[in-house]
Formats: sequence, structure tokens, C-alpha cells
Amino acid sequence: MSGPRAISRPRVGIAGIGLIGGSLALSLKAADFASELIGWDADAAVSEGAIGRGIIDRSVSSFADLSACVDLLVLAVPTQACELLLEQVLAGDFSGVVTDVASVKGPLIAVADAASEACSDCYVPGHPIAGSERSGYLAARRDLFDAHQVILTPREHTNRDAIDLVAGAWKATGATLHLMTPQAHDAILAQTSHLPHVLAFALVDALASGENNYDVFQHAAGGFRDFTRIASSDPTMWRDISLANRDALLVAMDVFDGHFQALRTSIENLDGERLQQVFSGAKRARDAFAKEFESRTARAESG
Amino acid sequence: MSGPRAISRPRVGIAGIGLIGGSLALSLKAADFASELIGWDADAAVSEGAIGRGIIDRSVSSFADLSACVDLLVLAVPTQACELLLEQVLAGDFSGVVTDVASVKGPLIAVADAASEACSDCYVPGHPIAGSERSGYLAARRDLFDAHQVILTPREHTNRDAIDLVAGAWKATGATLHLMTPQAHDAILAQTSHLPHVLAFALVDALASGENNYDVFQHAAGGFRDFTRIASSDPTMWRDISLANRDALLVAMDVFDGHFQALRTSIENLDGERLQQVFSGAKRARDAFAKEFESRTARAESG
Repeated sequence: MSGPRAISRPRVGIAGIGLIGGSLALSLKAADFASELIGWDADAAVSEGAIGRGIIDRSVSSFADLSACVDLLVLAVPTQACELLLEQVLAGDFSGVVTDVASVKGPLIAVADAASEACSDCYVPGHPIAGSERSGYLAARRDLFDAHQVILTPREHTNRDAIDLVAGAWKATGATLHLMTPQAHDAILAQTSHLPHVLAFALVDALASGENNYDVFQHAAGGFRDFTRIASSDPTMWRDISLANRDALLVAMDVFDGHFQALRTSIENLDGERLQQVFSGAKRARDAFAKEFESRTARAESG
Repeated sequence: MSGPRAISRPRVGIAGIGLIGGSLALSLKAADFASELIGWDADAAVSEGAIGRGIIDRSVSSFADLSACVDLLVLAVPTQACELLLEQVLAGDFSGVVTDVASVKGPLIAVADAASEACSDCYVPGHPIAGSERSGYLAARRDLFDAHQVILTPREHTNRDAIDLVAGAWKATGATLHLMTPQAHDAILAQTSHLPHVLAFALVDALASGENNYDVFQHAAGGFRDFTRIASSDPTMWRDISLANRDALLVAMDVFDGHFQALRTSIENLDGERLQQVFSGAKRARDAFAKEFESRTARAESG
């Protein structure tokens, strides 16, 4: 492509009007970023509902129609569908900029690598680190990204103007932008997000399978509720993420298991000194993170 | 002992004025349950501070002085210290009712079993399932136990009037009471509380030990903050709990590890069907728990 022109108020297309796509639309609308917000969803009732709630200006009936009429195309569908749509966009004569919001970047980079360089340089891989255990456009919120991070993982050949357009859209939502390689992104997210989800699912799975499961849940309290909140996330989405980030997730799971088994040994051996050391170190790291996180998000909470 | 008389407004002694002891004192005061609230803490500055904040009416300078002047004695010190104090009470000529708030009941039952039956029948083992990652009397709250559960694990020989007195105190705080065996208590708490803490400590320990730990915490978000909140808990307290409940905790850790490793195998084998099945089952169980928990605690939140 010849490179996208600088566009002041682009037509923005949102493919997949769920929590993320819907929140992005609401946020771009509030910022008056787009000249028009056009939506497409595989479920026509969702498109209708999103128009009714003022999330998008209008909808089109096919993905091909959407990509034909927008300057900036945001793929906000689940991971596996995202690969198919990106393949379709990069194989066609799309002349705008395309980005996505998928939690795992590796498989999408592979799709882009398989396309011609001239077509794929308009693709800016992205991932807003925001979400909720809720999903769907009814859960969409205008401030979902405010003071949250968005990671872009451009490829070597990614067009600079394309990056600027995508960055501009996310900045309009109040997000802060970070650039890194797809490998670094997938390794980090495996540790901070995908592993915790697997741990929460595994814990609830283990407790629910026990003979005394009724008593166990009956006497669980607020700490347990917070700890397992992410086990209420969408199972299909997390199946897809687990498979898409398989390699980095397996590494993170194995590293975790090493530390977990070391704690098990300390408990079995009644090694209080070692337990104290590990628990204290973990508390220090977590307290430092919480403090940094609070100052990072203070703007959103006070705003 | 001849059994405690029915006492309408007992003198209550709180040994250890931390989050739990301080909150209990505040709550009993609000309910006008006690004729006098007398405190003792190993740290005299804490006793002074607690008097200053109106948490206790007065303090005494030794544990022996406390047990000599109260009808109901609450041991609200950490697990290991609790064993020593209980031993001391049951070996002396204490004529009141003694209870505790420790998170693990097995070791205290062992102390009671080692004492004479006549002395130990005034001991009512208890555990309020309430807490916070904060600790100390400055974090004490009058409503900490409101609509929360308190589990009592009386022994075969425990005096009925003693149970009634302890139950009455907890009811005055707004808590709901449950009776079970110490073994059931320790197995349930291992699963719902001690295992999640070990998982959270192990996760933060693993991430903090990684080469890219700075980047990892830099890009972690709200889900991670909630999931790791309990890793900010007091390391000494959790060292003691892990050691005190060693056997039940090891069982819970091994059951968890079985489910975790099964998930690992499904991810390695790209077995999406199995992942979907496990994640869906866990979501159902967690959603059901969250709904039940909300209705259980609705009174506290609306009150």
C-alpha cells in the first residue's frame, strides 16, 4: 500500500460488538474521534441492540461490507475468529488500516507474515489490557480503557502512519500506549493474565470435584470470592487464549509449578524459615506492584 | 469445673488486640454485650493505643492478670502463641470460659486433649471467617463480623453453657454460627483459604523471580491485583497457619496440582474440547458460589 493518509476524523469500523468493541466505540464517540462508527457483528441482533444503545452509528450486514467502507478497521472478535478475519482483510484490496484487540499476538503475526508485505504493512497488532469477567455489548463502558494500558506490537514492516492512526484512536480513549515485540507481549501476558486464569479455573475445578464440595463453597468467604473472580470469565474465550498462547503459557505454568512445589516441600518439612522468606518476598513484590498500580490508575478513579 | 453460670453481661477479656481482637471488642461494645472489656497485648503500646481509640475499657499488664479477672476470655493472638496461652489457661485455676479465633483448630484441640477433662471443658474452639490483608488494631472495624460466619468446633466434653456464652458473644457481632468437627473445619479452610493464599504467594514469588519481572509487574492490571491481593497478607501469620494445618494443606495442594497438571496436559495436547469442559464447569461452580455468597452477605452490605 502507499501508506494511509493522515486522516483527522476517520470512518471507524468495529468488527465484533462485545465488551471490548462496544467499549471502544462508546469511548471514540465520546472523544468525537470518528466521522462515523460503523459496526458489524456475526449476530445481527447484537448490531441492532448496539445501534439502539447508541454504541455505533449504523451497522452493515457483512464483514466484507464493513472493510469496504472504513478507514480504520478494528477486529474485536475472539482470538480464533480474529485470525480468519485478518487473513480475509490482508488477502483483499483493503486500503485502510487494520488493528485488533486479541490477547495473544503470535498467531496473528503468523497470519500477517504469510500475507504479502505490501498488504500486511497496514496491520497494527494491538491489545488493550482491560476487561472484566463480564462480556457482551451490554457490559460495554465508555471508560473501560481510561488510564489502562494498550500494547501495540508492530512488525518490522508496519507502516508508521498506520501505527500513528491506531495510537491516536487509543489515546482518544484515555489509554496509555506501550510498544513491544509480540514475543515479549505473549510472554508477559502468559504470566500476568493467562496463568492466573488457569490457576483460578484449576482451583475451582479442584474444589468443585471434591466430596465435600457443598460444605467447601458454603464456608468460603470474601477472599475466596476475589481470588476466584476470574474463574467466572467466558470459558470459550479462555479456551481460545490458552490454545493460542500455548507455548508461553506452558512455560509460565511450569515456572509457577516449580515455585509451588518448593513451597510444598517447605511445608512438608516444616521449614518455617524458608516459608517466612518466600511469603515476605512475595508480599514485598505484591505491595510494590499494588502501589505502582494505584498511582498508574489514580487518574481514572479520580476522573 | 462446675460449669459457667448464665451471665447476662460478662466481663470479657481480649488477649491480643489486633485486627480480629480489636474488631471483636468494638463490636461487643456496640452491642453492649459486656459489663467490661479488658484487653491485654504483648505490646503495651498497643494496649494504650486501643484504650485511646475506645476499643477496650482498660488493659492489664500480664496475661495472668487478664485470665484472673474475666468471665469470658478470647485468645486473639497468632496461632503459635495461642497454643501456649491455651496451655497456660487450662493448667491454671481459670474459672471462666475460654475461646480462640485461630484459623487452624487441630493443634489447639491437641492442647485441650492433653489437659484434664475438668479443666478443658470450658474451652470452646472458634474461628471467625473474616479478615483482611490488613492487620493490627488500627485496621479494626466494628462491622468486621456482621453477616460473616463463625465456626465453633466444640469437643465431646465441652460444656454446653460455655458454648452458649461464646455463641452469644458472636451472635452479638452479627455473625452466623456453624458447628462442625475440628477435622472438617481444617480440611475446609485448607481448601478455601490456606490453599488460595499459598497459590497467590507462589504466583507472585514465581513472577518476581523471573528475568523480566520489572516488565511483568509493569503491565499487570486489575485482574492481577485482585487475584494477588491475599499475597499482601502477613507473612508470619501465614507461615504459622501453613505449618499448623500442614497435613490438610498438603492434601489440598496435591488435589489442586492434579487438576492443574490435567489442564497443562490439555493445553499441551491442544485439547480444546476438554479445556472448554473444565473452564465451563469451573465457571458454573464459581457463579453459583458468588450468587450464594452475595445473598449470604447482602444483610451486611445493606445494613
